[in-house]
Amino acid sequence: MIDLCTLGTGGSMPMPDRALSSLYVRVNGRLLLVDCGEGTQTGVRRAGWGFVNVDAILITHFHADHCGGLPGFLLSIAKTPRTEPIHLYGPVGLRQVVSGLCVVCPPMPYPMILHELHGGETFSAIGLTITCFSLNHGVPCLGYRFELPRAAAFDPEKARALKVPLPLWRLLQQGEAVDVDGRRVEPSQVTGEPRRGLSFLFATDTRPVPALVEQGRDVDMMILEGMYGDEAKRPQALKNRHMLFEEAAGMARNAGARALTLTHFSPSLEEPEAYLPNAQAVFPDTVCASDGLCMTLRYQGR
Amino acid sequence: MIDLCTLGTGGSMPMPDRALSSLYVRVNGRLLLVDCGEGTQTGVRRAGWGFVNVDAILITHFHADHCGGLPGFLLSIAKTPRTEPIHLYGPVGLRQVVSGLCVVCPPMPYPMILHELHGGETFSAIGLTITCFSLNHGVPCLGYRFELPRAAAFDPEKARALKVPLPLWRLLQQGEAVDVDGRRVEPSQVTGEPRRGLSFLFATDTRPVPALVEQGRDVDMMILEGMYGDEAKRPQALKNRHMLFEEAAGMARNAGARALTLTHFSPSLEEPEAYLPNAQAVFPDTVCASDGLCMTLRYQGR
Repeated sequence: MIDLCTLGTGGSMPMPDRALSSLYVRVNGRLLLVDCGEGTQTGVRRAGWGFVNVDAILITHFHADHCGGLPGFLLSIAKTPRTEPIHLYGPVGLRQVVSGLCVVCPPMPYPMILHELHGGETFSAIGLTITCFSLNHGVPCLGYRFELPRAAAFDPEKARALKVPLPLWRLLQQGEAVDVDGRRVEPSQVTGEPRRGLSFLFATDTRPVPALVEQGRDVDMMILEGMYGDEAKRPQALKNRHMLFEEAAGMARNAGARALTLTHFSPSLEEPEAYLPNAQAVFPDTVCASDGLCMTLRYQGR
Repeated sequence: MIDLCTLGTGGSMPMPDRALSSLYVRVNGRLLLVDCGEGTQTGVRRAGWGFVNVDAILITHFHADHCGGLPGFLLSIAKTPRTEPIHLYGPVGLRQVVSGLCVVCPPMPYPMILHELHGGETFSAIGLTITCFSLNHGVPCLGYRFELPRAAAFDPEKARALKVPLPLWRLLQQGEAVDVDGRRVEPSQVTGEPRRGLSFLFATDTRPVPALVEQGRDVDMMILEGMYGDEAKRPQALKNRHMLFEEAAGMARNAGARALTLTHFSPSLEEPEAYLPNAQAVFPDTVCASDGLCMTLRYQGR
């Protein structure tokens, strides 16, 4: 399963009860952060997920509300016993931004490995396969699709048919081949059909683009910006290259996503829920995130 | 009068209800900020004092908990109609730090004028005369003393004795000389004794040093760090060059300050008030600040 926590759900400027956009992702106890606006380290403390197990930090783009919290977040990790490397991913320019922001940081007790992305790359972190893709925000801005594969189920009938003794089942279940009376039995011989894994997509700060629909195809959840609530803000959405609630919902509907969570609300949206019907009219399974909202994606079926 | 608001009262790392150290100062509607840890812009929103009237930002030193919020704070000012210059003061290195942190900022709509200080300089902002002095924290770190002068009171008896007609009193009260039957009367001729102004001192991140006592002489308020609450933390205080509650109180007592406010609490201090008696035993007029605490220094007497 995958745990998600929207540490901050604000865009542009933080509000007293809405920190800047950032998402914490947990798989098997390991952590990954998407975006790190000012206030992220406080959000981590509120969530209680800790800092020590962060293996990767993904930045969507280099506007301050998406990366201004990096020095504090990295320093909070530095106060844990962590010494293993941390991988940072972001658009081209990542080196310059990290180098600039870390002017106030002493040398860290862990190596930082920086990966500058152009969009289109696929990489792995905390067990997730991650694909990045380009958005439309005026500056280089990336969306990320995350996939957690699921192993095919062990099929006892197949194991019995191959006369595998019971004590060897556990090895096959763990993915190891075994020898049975001189025959080699591979795990793939005793498993059923491939099973659907889990997937989600995170994208903020963009106009609607075909990549959102392509990358969001069939995902368990899309997490998209809900910068502006209604039609009245369309001029700002066009000018600042953001989405309206209904536009984000349209992306989720067209992608065939299973659920949509809106985040990254404009400071002008005092109550995002008031505009939720505008999204639900297009895509019913929509919710508005709030700071500290935790959601779990679980495998469906056996 | 001078309004003070401790926007954040945490040291080192922010806690959910304790942002990093920062003080907002207001005189006649103009604003000055001392230190700008991550979360400062959120504290400003909570306080409701706004961003547009900030004329000066003073940084004590370049540890991230004292300046990591600069990009966000400067960007929040940039979203107001402000175009007048903002003066930034801090130790040598200020240019490099501002340049690094502002890697995530677009060009600002107001000029930023940077002043690198060595300690010992005196300058003016928002009507305050400010003196900076060196502390003992391992890296260059400045304390600041603030003084608001008070004009001497207008003395009607002196004006009458000099036969100044009533309609001219207002000009003299406003500091202008007047002509009376060919004689020139200066404002100083119709005022009484000089009156005590207001003063306060802000210093965190230091071991006790004589400069605190010298600069804190007779001030209306010292705002000092209360990084550690009791004797058990003396080894950390010595190692990290911070003060215990009782050490800060000793500085206030030796300076003859009129009041002491403790701030910049270690994350290990869950309830600073629990340690307040350790300070009050040395200097009774001590309080612990909390985020958003507003205090007003008022002229005493007529």
